[in-house]
Amino acid sequence: MNAFVVDTITIIGVGLIGGSIGMAAKAKGLARRVVGVSRRTETLQRARELAAIDTGTKDLRSGVAEADLVFVCTPVLSIVPVIQAIAGSLKEGAIVTDVGSTKAQITRDAEAALPEGRYFVGGHPMAGLETAGVDSALPYLFLDTTYAVTPVPSTDLKALQTVVGFAEGLGAQVILMSPEQHDSSAAVISHLPHVLSAAILRLAAEEQNRSGKVFELAAGSFRDMTRVALSPPEIWRDICMSSTEALTSVIKRFEEMLAGIREDIASGDSEAVCRLFSEGREIRETQIKAGASFANGGSVNNRAS
Amino acid sequence: MNAFVVDTITIIGVGLIGGSIGMAAKAKGLARRVVGVSRRTETLQRARELAAIDTGTKDLRSGVAEADLVFVCTPVLSIVPVIQAIAGSLKEGAIVTDVGSTKAQITRDAEAALPEGRYFVGGHPMAGLETAGVDSALPYLFLDTTYAVTPVPSTDLKALQTVVGFAEGLGAQVILMSPEQHDSSAAVISHLPHVLSAAILRLAAEEQNRSGKVFELAAGSFRDMTRVALSPPEIWRDICMSSTEALTSVIKRFEEMLAGIREDIASGDSEAVCRLFSEGREIRETQIKAGASFANGGSVNNRAS
Repeated sequence: MNAFVVDTITIIGVGLIGGSIGMAAKAKGLARRVVGVSRRTETLQRARELAAIDTGTKDLRSGVAEADLVFVCTPVLSIVPVIQAIAGSLKEGAIVTDVGSTKAQITRDAEAALPEGRYFVGGHPMAGLETAGVDSALPYLFLDTTYAVTPVPSTDLKALQTVVGFAEGLGAQVILMSPEQHDSSAAVISHLPHVLSAAILRLAAEEQNRSGKVFELAAGSFRDMTRVALSPPEIWRDICMSSTEALTSVIKRFEEMLAGIREDIASGDSEAVCRLFSEGREIRETQIKAGASFANGGSVNNRAS
Repeated sequence: MNAFVVDTITIIGVGLIGGSIGMAAKAKGLARRVVGVSRRTETLQRARELAAIDTGTKDLRSGVAEADLVFVCTPVLSIVPVIQAIAGSLKEGAIVTDVGSTKAQITRDAEAALPEGRYFVGGHPMAGLETAGVDSALPYLFLDTTYAVTPVPSTDLKALQTVVGFAEGLGAQVILMSPEQHDSSAAVISHLPHVLSAAILRLAAEEQNRSGKVFELAAGSFRDMTRVALSPPEIWRDICMSSTEALTSVIKRFEEMLAGIREDIASGDSEAVCRLFSEGREIRETQIKAGASFANGGSVNNRAS
């Protein structure tokens, strides 16, 4: 009974996210036709078998020729090159969106790449799994997750409505943010935790080399703190490199915050130190929903990349 | 069939750790008699009901009068005042140990407080639970956990052997470290994670006040990273205040490490950034044993305080 949100969508990069978008689009009647683009024939074949796409092609340009809505679901540093490659093949009125973990640089470059009458709207679905690839895709991956959509002043309103309607059709809760606001928030809430996790492991390894007995003292707090360091290094390198301004600014703020805490401890200001921990606990209790952790991976809804 | 390690032990502070030591001492025949000292009559009564102690008293001095081995299991900042209070009541040859999370300041002050012929040996069992109090105590709390014992050059060898033998009798694996080595390692592996967790929550709350949409983007990585912030603030304040030198030195090193990482990101050195994440993953995979996390609390053996 659903009206299609669009007639034809093309998904470039048919992995976990792209495949799940295709499955959900079919299952929920969001599009009449789903075209998949991948560099690998086997991926396209498997995506067809799993009903994630209707047809597949390895050719970017022909793949997008009939698309009303293009989802670019490649690794984050490939998003802009892909958009530049397809820009000349999009039909009048076509909308391009992406699922990259950073938004400001991508939005600037994508807007610049598209010709008149083709529209870009950035997006970032906060959903994921520990596993990758179309075999892990699920039609309900986005159910009850947050989906950030990041318009800019020049964003076409109808294109924005289409992307928002599609994301809501996937089952997600859409929040609108500017690309800069997104990147700054994601730098705090997602990118910085990954940097801190890797950094504390580096510090611990240094200390281990000095004293030889550090890791024997490791308990639950260290294990929790470093769990995200099990994520694929290349993905996190690319995310860092695609949002250097926001991330370095947040790291700098964190360094300054640590320096202040260090001074409180050094000067014996136990009230300030207690406030740090008691406020931290209160923020954690009130702001963060309960949910499965990364490693325990109980739920599909708990991981943003 | 076990020979007692000692005749009489006195446990000052009969909570989770003290109660578990008492239960294990009885269950494993490590001591003929277990005396408990607490400020609260109800705690002593409950500890007797749970067979964690044989007899109890609210009086510190009479409680330690017959002790061969005294376990000080109070909050970390009370350990030295307790040792100063009992110093004059210890019998010739009595050994005092503690279970505090920091060791250097405690060891210096404890050694200074004890008269000739009474011996101090610091310790830190790396075991715990989310719950507190003697009702949570377990005779097997220390089984297969690490127990740091921290002698100094002036430590009496026979006293050291007694404490090590007792800790091994509890089922723990003993590692010997200097108090300074312990505090430096614990600052990296335990105290710094708690500071970082609270600090990132403070930064996120700041960002939330700016943009209003930060916590909606929080996913598994942020949840894992901030789980330890649910720990009791007063305990962590006291741990920080009892080891200010080691902790501030580690925080300073971490600030410098972050500054280096920030410069790598800012200068676009993607190889260095990738190395950070790939080395971090390798250290995490090779050095940290699998185990239940803090919040999931499956195992009793995974939390050091």
